Amino acid sequence: MQINAYGAYAGDKPLEPLKINRRAPGAHDVQIDIAFCGVCHSDLHQVRAEWAGTHFPCVPGHEIVGRVSAVGPQVSGFKLGDLVGIGCIVDSCKHCAECEEGLENYCDGMVGTYNGPTPDAPGWTQGGYSQKIVVHERYVLRIRHPAAQLAAVAPLLCAGITTYSPLRHWNVGPGKKVGVVGIGGLGHMGIKLAHAMGARVVAFTTSESKREAAKALGADEVVVSRNSGEMAAHASSFDFILDTVAASHDLEAFLALLKRDGALTLVGAPATPHPSPNVFSLIHKRKTIAGSMIGGIPETQEMLDFCAEHGIVADIELIRIDQINDAYERMLKGDVKYRFVIDSASLAG
Amino acid sequence: MQINAYGAYAGDKPLEPLKINRRAPGAHDVQIDIAFCGVCHSDLHQVRAEWAGTHFPCVPGHEIVGRVSAVGPQVSGFKLGDLVGIGCIVDSCKHCAECEEGLENYCDGMVGTYNGPTPDAPGWTQGGYSQKIVVHERYVLRIRHPAAQLAAVAPLLCAGITTYSPLRHWNVGPGKKVGVVGIGGLGHMGIKLAHAMGARVVAFTTSESKREAAKALGADEVVVSRNSGEMAAHASSFDFILDTVAASHDLEAFLALLKRDGALTLVGAPATPHPSPNVFSLIHKRKTIAGSMIGGIPETQEMLDFCAEHGIVADIELIRIDQINDAYERMLKGDVKYRFVIDSASLAG
Repeated sequence: MQINAYGAYAGDKPLEPLKINRRAPGAHDVQIDIAFCGVCHSDLHQVRAEWAGTHFPCVPGHEIVGRVSAVGPQVSGFKLGDLVGIGCIVDSCKHCAECEEGLENYCDGMVGTYNGPTPDAPGWTQGGYSQKIVVHERYVLRIRHPAAQLAAVAPLLCAGITTYSPLRHWNVGPGKKVGVVGIGGLGHMGIKLAHAMGARVVAFTTSESKREAAKALGADEVVVSRNSGEMAAHASSFDFILDTVAASHDLEAFLALLKRDGALTLVGAPATPHPSPNVFSLIHKRKTIAGSMIGGIPETQEMLDFCAEHGIVADIELIRIDQINDAYERMLKGDVKYRFVIDSASLAG
Repeated sequence: MQINAYGAYAGDKPLEPLKINRRAPGAHDVQIDIAFCGVCHSDLHQVRAEWAGTHFPCVPGHEIVGRVSAVGPQVSGFKLGDLVGIGCIVDSCKHCAECEEGLENYCDGMVGTYNGPTPDAPGWTQGGYSQKIVVHERYVLRIRHPAAQLAAVAPLLCAGITTYSPLRHWNVGPGKKVGVVGIGGLGHMGIKLAHAMGARVVAFTTSESKREAAKALGADEVVVSRNSGEMAAHASSFDFILDTVAASHDLEAFLALLKRDGALTLVGAPATPHPSPNVFSLIHKRKTIAGSMIGGIPETQEMLDFCAEHGIVADIELIRIDQINDAYERMLKGDVKYRFVIDSASLAG
């Protein structure tokens, strides 16, 4: 079926209206009428060909929410009208150790929601800046939030799970002191989630102006990282620091704030590496620097349920699809609190 | 009491005979007649003032074995004639969280066996290139190896625990594939220990000539890391890699060999940082880069007992104290298999 979408024909071209095809639902497929789609920084990197291997036309979008509008005959978990979400993953090999453990995000055959290999024409996946999507039920998430919150749920599918997964993996909870570096799309979710998990949360920002906003999100304390005195007051006190900043920056300053056995986990991938940290900063107290990439399907469901239970959604600014190019420019300037979400109704007609 | 020792009066001076004083044993002190002392690369860094803050005259040595020759009235764990060892730690605060957990190596008040602060004259500790040492019993290790192996036990006190501790902390054992990078003083112990723990051990060397020697130490396989084809054959297959190389080198090549959730742990601290690894190399499979520094006292005892039980000692070349300056030059060239040990009898007279 042919549907309306928005995408780019080249990395240096703006996004514009185009038509794409979705397959008829196969035996295990769920077809979703998309209601909203979040705007992730990855969308911009891929569609502007800042990351290698972009296929054009490219339709981004992997923070997708909507309602089930058709199901294949073998689908057991979803029915017409269900509120559902699709995140960054629409397929994987289904049989490797990672898939068997529900860590499809680390499967070598993981297929991204856009720009991933698929037998469907034109040969690569096309994402959520579109009216509908058809996905194997394994990768479909149930949404238990009230329908009125649906737009603000969308960013949980990437920004939410990308921060939830490492917070859980590194055992954030009551009695733990946790830092969140950067207060943007990812960071604002990290603060809300770590707070809801019961940790003491310290937000790090380079901007004095974000201090009150970070507290409103749930930070117990806010540190302006350019202020060395404020940083020094937290030396050797953190169990875990989640670094959401995708620009190259000094890691030493944050390593110094970790306790023995503390971990600094990076979820932002800068275009150029961070300055290399001194090995002694790791050796001295058995510290670690780690990375984490989105999360698996069962954990994404767990995150959505956790958020529904705790009343957590993203802070969003709703836009029409024809505002997407402006939204990208504003996102680059950090001029959004904290996530743009496309109202997919604006794709009609 | 005044005893014979060997040390340097300045960073650019060779080591030479000198006299030092040891305190009379206090209530909890054990006095040890030193039989042998291993020669660690750290000794050279400190005595040549390549590391900051060296106090002169500096008497290095922190791989000490010998027999108890006096005990204070409150000493309960040791008696005259016991075979004992002293490693890198001779004091700590004794009441912080680290000390309470037996991780004195991570105590902020940890006092090194040489060049550490002490109320004893001259105000800094002096190490094992000497005839005797007096240490609080908390930091004295029991040696259960046969006395005939004593010289080869000495390097376990630093090279042994520095590799044993991270192998244990990162759960090396049966069913795990473990890499050891560098086949020197630390690396040769890492191979022996990981093998005895039941792991599949792959040794990495830059030198084709070390292939057979590494197998003899217990490596199941040896990879020449300059050979990209050999490296590629091991992609994404390691649970854990212990990197013992103290020179700046490329970490990416080893990160690529880790499985999902694998850890690359550094125990060598290069004078200049390693080239900064790409963050995506960490994010892609939730990998970690970590550091580890020696080990705590209970774990050092556990390591010594493990080695006694498995018949593990270091491969050593015994030297007289008057060969120490030559030994340093040979150590710098990697011309030792794999650890020099000083016969402390050569300090007499």
